[in-house]
Amino acid sequence: METGTKPAAGIAPWSEVTTILVDVAAGRRPADLVIRGGRWVNVQSREILDGQDLAISAGRFAWCGPDASHCIGPDTQVIDADGRFMTPGLCDGHMHVESGMLTVSRFVEAVIPHGTTSMFVDPHEVANVLGLRGVRLMHDEALQQPVNVFVQMPSCAPSAAGLETTGHEIGPDEVAEAMTWPNIIGLGEMMNFPGIIGGHAGLHAEVAETQRAGKTVGGHYASPDLGRAFHAYAAAGPADDHEGTREADAIARARQGMRAMLRLGSAWYDVKAQITAVTEKGLDPRNFILCTDDCHSGTLVEDGHMDRVLRHAIDCGCDPLVALQMATINTATHFGLEREIGSIAPGRRADVILTRDLETFPVDMVIARGQVLVDRTVAGGGGTQDGRLGTVPDVRFEWPGDTRATVNTGRAMTAVDFAVRVPSGTGSARVRAIGVVENQAPTRALEATLPASPDGVLEADTGLDIALVAVVERHRGSGRVQTGFVSGFGYTSACAMASTVAHDSHHIIVVGTCRQAMAMAVNRLAETGGGFVLVKDGSEMARVPLPVAGLMSDEPAPVVAGQVRTLIEAMADCGCALNNACMQHSLLALVVIPELRLSDLGLVDVGRFEFTDAVIS
Amino acid sequence: METGTKPAAGIAPWSEVTTILVDVAAGRRPADLVIRGGRWVNVQSREILDGQDLAISAGRFAWCGPDASHCIGPDTQVIDADGRFMTPGLCDGHMHVESGMLTVSRFVEAVIPHGTTSMFVDPHEVANVLGLRGVRLMHDEALQQPVNVFVQMPSCAPSAAGLETTGHEIGPDEVAEAMTWPNIIGLGEMMNFPGIIGGHAGLHAEVAETQRAGKTVGGHYASPDLGRAFHAYAAAGPADDHEGTREADAIARARQGMRAMLRLGSAWYDVKAQITAVTEKGLDPRNFILCTDDCHSGTLVEDGHMDRVLRHAIDCGCDPLVALQMATINTATHFGLEREIGSIAPGRRADVILTRDLETFPVDMVIARGQVLVDRTVAGGGGTQDGRLGTVPDVRFEWPGDTRATVNTGRAMTAVDFAVRVPSGTGSARVRAIGVVENQAPTRALEATLPASPDGVLEADTGLDIALVAVVERHRGSGRVQTGFVSGFGYTSACAMASTVAHDSHHIIVVGTCRQAMAMAVNRLAETGGGFVLVKDGSEMARVPLPVAGLMSDEPAPVVAGQVRTLIEAMADCGCALNNACMQHSLLALVVIPELRLSDLGLVDVGRFEFTDAVIS
Repeated sequence: METGTKPAAGIAPWSEVTTILVDVAAGRRPADLVIRGGRWVNVQSREILDGQDLAISAGRFAWCGPDASHCIGPDTQVIDADGRFMTPGLCDGHMHVESGMLTVSRFVEAVIPHGTTSMFVDPHEVANVLGLRGVRLMHDEALQQPVNVFVQMPSCAPSAAGLETTGHEIGPDEVAEAMTWPNIIGLGEMMNFPGIIGGHAGLHAEVAETQRAGKTVGGHYASPDLGRAFHAYAAAGPADDHEGTREADAIARARQGMRAMLRLGSAWYDVKAQITAVTEKGLDPRNFILCTDDCHSGTLVEDGHMDRVLRHAIDCGCDPLVALQMATINTATHFGLEREIGSIAPGRRADVILTRDLETFPVDMVIARGQVLVDRTVAGGGGTQDGRLGTVPDVRFEWPGDTRATVNTGRAMTAVDFAVRVPSGTGSARVRAIGVVENQAPTRALEATLPASPDGVLEADTGLDIALVAVVERHRGSGRVQTGFVSGFGYTSACAMASTVAHDSHHIIVVGTCRQAMAMAVNRLAETGGGFVLVKDGSEMARVPLPVAGLMSDEPAPVVAGQVRTLIEAMADCGCALNNACMQHSLLALVVIPELRLSDLGLVDVGRFEFTDAVIS
Repeated sequence: METGTKPAAGIAPWSEVTTILVDVAAGRRPADLVIRGGRWVNVQSREILDGQDLAISAGRFAWCGPDASHCIGPDTQVIDADGRFMTPGLCDGHMHVESGMLTVSRFVEAVIPHGTTSMFVDPHEVANVLGLRGVRLMHDEALQQPVNVFVQMPSCAPSAAGLETTGHEIGPDEVAEAMTWPNIIGLGEMMNFPGIIGGHAGLHAEVAETQRAGKTVGGHYASPDLGRAFHAYAAAGPADDHEGTREADAIARARQGMRAMLRLGSAWYDVKAQITAVTEKGLDPRNFILCTDDCHSGTLVEDGHMDRVLRHAIDCGCDPLVALQMATINTATHFGLEREIGSIAPGRRADVILTRDLETFPVDMVIARGQVLVDRTVAGGGGTQDGRLGTVPDVRFEWPGDTRATVNTGRAMTAVDFAVRVPSGTGSARVRAIGVVENQAPTRALEATLPASPDGVLEADTGLDIALVAVVERHRGSGRVQTGFVSGFGYTSACAMASTVAHDSHHIIVVGTCRQAMAMAVNRLAETGGGFVLVKDGSEMARVPLPVAGLMSDEPAPVVAGQVRTLIEAMADCGCALNNACMQHSLLALVVIPELRLSDLGLVDVGRFEFTDAVIS
C-alpha cells in the first residue's frame, strides 16, 4: 500500500524518491545518514546479521547490507552502531491515545524514547464527544508527528445505541467519508459484536464501507463463546481481535484467519496466557501481533510502552526475534503497510532502534524517518546513559477553542440533583448497587437495604460501602442527571470524585458519599473543561485537568502522570484502596460490559440490555 | 484489499454478502454447500485439524470448524470429505499464460484439474504484439474465468528499447491507465533491471504509478551480482523476484524484504537450489512463494501445474504445510489478497482441494468459489479415479478479428530475402553465429568460416551445424528481414522452422538450412495468423496454429500439446535432437539475455548492448 501519498510530516512517498535511493545504493550519491557496524535484526528473514551498515536518504533506507562506505559523502552523518542490534522501530497494533489522557503529540513524545515509531490509534473516545470532527482533528494531529501514527475510524458511537447518548453519532456515512482521508488505515474495533452477529444493517454497512476502501476492519469480540457466535462474527469481516484472554482465544482467531492481537496495557495482561499458542502449541507466529490497547500516562513514564510489551513477551518464553516480528512486520503486514514500515529493508521508512540486548531491550537510540530522535549512547561505547539526547520535535497542534469547552451540564448542580428518593415515610428501601470487582472490568449487580430520611432520600452508607453514583449529561446541556448506588470504592470520608472520562459516551460520572461534594465536583469540571476532580470535606483535594474534549491534556506525560498520582493518593486518603481506582470509576457507565451500569439514560441491566431501577422496593 | 468490487464472474464482494455469511454461521440460513468430515489444512495457523466441516454460501466460506450441521438445510449440497485433507486452492504467483500457447480460458481449463484456483498472470507477450488493448483483452478474459485470474500490467515492451521494435510500446501512461482497471493486481516483472539501476525516468515512473495505486511491483533481476546493483534494484521498489537460481539469491531477496518466488516451469528448475534457504538455513518461510513462470501445454497435460510445483517442493525436503503456505497464503498476502484468497477461512472465496495425501497430492476434488469443478472421488470412498467429473465451465471469450490477424510481413517472402551476402567472388567469409547451448537460456557468440557462392551468398552448412536464421518484422508490414547464422539445432535436412513466438517482441523467427523452405514457412505463418511451421523438402511437416496474436491457440491444451509434440518429432526428423528445441528457437531474438541474438533491427551483441554484423570479414 502506498501510504506515502499521505501528507505525513517530513516523509516523501517511496514512489517519489526511488531514483534517490537507487543512486545512493549504487554509490552515485551520498546518503543523508549511515549507521555502521551494527547487528541487523532482520524481521523479514528472521535472522541476525553481524557487521552490517544502513544507509538512509529521504527518510528511507537506501542500503541495508555489508559495508556502506560507498554511500558516505562529506555531508553524510555517520553513526557508529558499535556492534549493537539494529531493530525496526516498534509498532503498537491497536491503541487509544485517550487512555493516556494525553493529546496525540504528548503521547507520541512520551513513547518515542521507548522505541515506538508506529501506532494504530482508534480515537473512539474523542468520537463519542466530538464526532467525525474530533476524529479528523486526531487524524490531522497524527499527520504532524515525527513518527507514524495511523488512525482507525471509530465504528461504535454510541457503543450501545438506545442505552446511552453521545455527543455525536457514527454511522456508515461517517465511515465512508473517513475512508477518503489520507491517514485512515481502517475501521476501529467493531465492539458491537452482538449487533454484527445479529445482522444489524448499519454496522454491516460500516464494515462494507471499510472493505470497499481496501482497508482493515478492526475486531473486538469480548466473549468467551468460541462457538457459533464467534464464527458468525468472523464471517462478517473483522480482521483482528485484541479481546482474547485465553490460549484458546488466540488459537481460534488465528485459525479463522483473524490476527490475534495480544495485549499488555496498563490494566490488560493478555499476552502471557495467549502467547503459548506460539511458544507451546507451535502455531505460525505470523498472525500474532502485540499491542497495548490502553496505557495510562504513569505506565508510559514509569514502565514503558511497546518495549515493555516486547520484554514481557520474551519473558513469557517467546523467542526474541519472533516477539520482535509480532511488534513490527506482523503489524505492518496486517495493515497493508509491509513495504512502508515494520522492517529494516530498502525503501521503508528508516525507523531504527539501537539496543545492546534483544531480551532486556534497553533503547539506546531511536531513529525515525532517518532523524535521530533519542540518543542515550555513552561516549566511547554502546552503553546507555540516563539522560536523553537527540531531538524529539515539540509538535504543537492547536485544538480549536470549542473542543476545549465540551463540558455543558446546562446548569449548575446542587446537592438535590443527586438525591435518590423514595416516597416520604418509607423508612428503608431495597436498592440495586453496582458492585465494583477489583482488577476486573465486569461489575456485579448487588442489592442492599438503605434507610430513608423522613422526606424519602436515600443516602450513601459508608458502613456498607455504598456510595452514590450519578451520571450527568454533559454534551447537550440537557441538565439530565441519573442516580444510583455503587459499592467497592470504600470511601469513608465526606467526599466525591467526578470525571468527564466516562466510557464510552463520556458524560460526567460522579461517585460520592456526600451530595454537596458531588455537586461541587461536577460544577468544577464544568468550569474547567473536564478531567478528574476529587472533593473532600468541601475542598478540592486533587484535579487532573483534561481540557481537550474533557479527555486529554496537552501537558507532558510526566505532568499528567503526577496529577493522576496525586488524585489516586487523594482517593486513598478518602478511604479508597482499590487497585486501578480511577479506571474503575471511569468504567461505571460502560453499558456494554455486564452486569450493572449507569448511563445518562438510566441504570442498565447489561445482561438483558434493558433499563432497571435503582430502587427495588 | 477489497477485490470483490471487481466484476469477476460468479462472485460477489465479501462486503455485499456479510449478512448472508453471518446468517449461515449463526444457523439462521442454510448454506449452499457443506463439506463434512475433512481434515482442515489451516495455512493461517499452520495446523491440520481433524474432523472439520466447511459451510459455503455466495461462493465464500461462512463456517470453518467442527460440525456444520446447523448450516445444512433441505437444499444444501453436502459433500462427504471422508477424512480427506481440505486444502486451499493453489496459487501461481507469477506466470505467463502465453507460454502454454493457450488463451486464458483454455489455460485455466487445463490447470483447474491440478488444483490451481488463482493465477497472477503477466501478459507480457500479448503486450508486445497488441499493446495496452491486448492487455485489456487478457484482463477481460481473466474476469470471465471460474477461478481467480489476476493480471499484472506488463512493464517492459519493448524489453530492450533501441535494440528491437514491438507492435506497441508500454510506458508510464499505459501503466497509469491499467492501474485503474478492476482486475490489475500490479506491475509485471520489471525486466529492465539495468535501466532501473541506471535511474531511467520512464521505468521509475512505471514503478511510481504502480506504487501510487497501492499495487505490487513485480521484479525480475536476472543477474548473479548480489552487490550494489542488486541493492540498487531493491531500493527502486520491486517487491518480488523469480529470477534467483541459487540459495544465496533467495536469501538475499528475503533479507531485502523482497519475496523470493521459487520457480518450477517447464524449463525452469529453480526450487531445489533455493528452498534450502528455508529447509536448511531456517529463514522465515513467509517470504517464499512458489510459481511456474512458464509452462508449456505438454507440461500441463502430462505433469501438472501448481500441484507439480508443490510436490517438487516437498520432494526437496520442504515440510508439506510450509510448502502449501508457499503456494497459498504467502502468495495471497504478497498481493494484498489475504482476506480474499489463499486460505480456508471465513469470508474468503471458497476454493478448496480435497486430497488423500499431502505429499503426493492427488487432486480428488476441486471446488472454486463454492462450485465443484472437478470430482474424481470414487463412489463409496475417498479414492481417485482416472476420469474427471465435475463441471469446469466452457468459457468462450471472443478475441476480436483483428487480434487474430496480427502477422503482417508486408509482402510474400522469397528465398532471396534470406540470403546473407558478401561481395561477389569473396570465396569464403568469417561469420558470427548464435551458439545455442542445450538447457540454457544464454547463447554463445560463435564464429565460423563459410564458403560463398560465386555471386556472394553464404549458405547454411549442415556439416558445421550452421543454419541460417532470420527475423522478419511482422507487426507493421515493413517487409524488413534481418539475417544471420545459428549453430546448435543440428538440422541435416533441407528444412526450415518458423514461428511467431519470438520473445519478446514476437516477430517471426525462422531457422533453416534451405532458403526456399524458410520463405515457405514464413509465408505460411503470414497466411494462417501465426504459430509454428516446419517445412522439409518443400512440404509442411508440422504446424501449431496460434491464431490469437500469433501466440495463443483457442484449442484445448491436449490438442495444442499434441501439435507441439508432432512439431518436435518433425524437428527431430530434420536432425534436431536438442532438448526444448521449440523454446530455444523462440528465444533466439531475446535481446536481453547474452551473448548474441538477432532482432528485427539486426544482430545484437547483448554483452555490449549494441549491434554487430553477421559477417566479420
